[in-house]
Amino acid sequence: MAYDPGNIFAKILRGELPAYTVYEDARVLAFLDIMPRAAGHVLVIPKAPARNLLDVKADDLAAVAAAAQRIAQAQMKVFEAEGITLTQHNEKAGGQEVFHLHVHVIPRHAGIELRAPLSYKEAADVLADQASRLAAALRD
Amino acid sequence: MAYDPGNIFAKILRGELPAYTVYEDARVLAFLDIMPRAAGHVLVIPKAPARNLLDVKADDLAAVAAAAQRIAQAQMKVFEAEGITLTQHNEKAGGQEVFHLHVHVIPRHAGIELRAPLSYKEAADVLADQASRLAAALRD
Repeated sequence: MAYDPGNIFAKILRGELPAYTVYEDARVLAFLDIMPRAAGHVLVIPKAPARNLLDVKADDLAAVAAAAQRIAQAQMKVFEAEGITLTQHNEKAGGQEVFHLHVHVIPRHAGIELRAPLSYKEAADVLADQASRLAAALRD
Repeated sequence: MAYDPGNIFAKILRGELPAYTVYEDARVLAFLDIMPRAAGHVLVIPKAPARNLLDVKADDLAAVAAAAQRIAQAQMKVFEAEGITLTQHNEKAGGQEVFHLHVHVIPRHAGIELRAPLSYKEAADVLADQASRLAAALRD
């Protein structure tokens, strides 16, 4: 399947939409999901166009995985998380909603279920505070 | 948290338990989940000890991600999948049940929900046939 540059993550990468950025390097951007399944829910994406796991280039996939690890480690500290859940969806049947590769990195606490996807929109001030704390931890 | 070499994936790596292997290289082993959430559900693990994403070494993580991609591409063909869902669980609060890093790579078809984890045990002959077909596709 082809890559559609009109997707919202491509718009974030082009600076046409804002994002609560927590981490950035030459290959990867990571930002808070504004509809988090739990507090501190981050999306990691490659900067290069990739529809999903099925077409992403090897170096970009490795960079996304490495960034996901760093973010998970930072979430454990910043949100005092007790665990981390990763999900990654490919094509509509696989649960994909935005057609630019993204990995969900979600802090977890014992006994608290994930919210259903797209069921809750977080307040802007909460997101700004979380992004600031997570970005600081990722600069260390 | 420390790595416990008594976990069942460590036993598979040591040859103490059997597995329906679909792919193997110097760093990675991939085999069918015997309690699949959908037909063709694969687990990808590093051969080196790693409890989960929080402690895995960079090269092993990159190898697991690369293998997951190859497996997803093969599942699309072998199972005529319409999508792929990846999940990866860290620590008990994150949904982890076996404490050796593993990535779930699950073929999807439109309109078919995933089974709940650990809710269904697949028949041995079905698993053997699926593993054979997937391994053949991954050798190509």
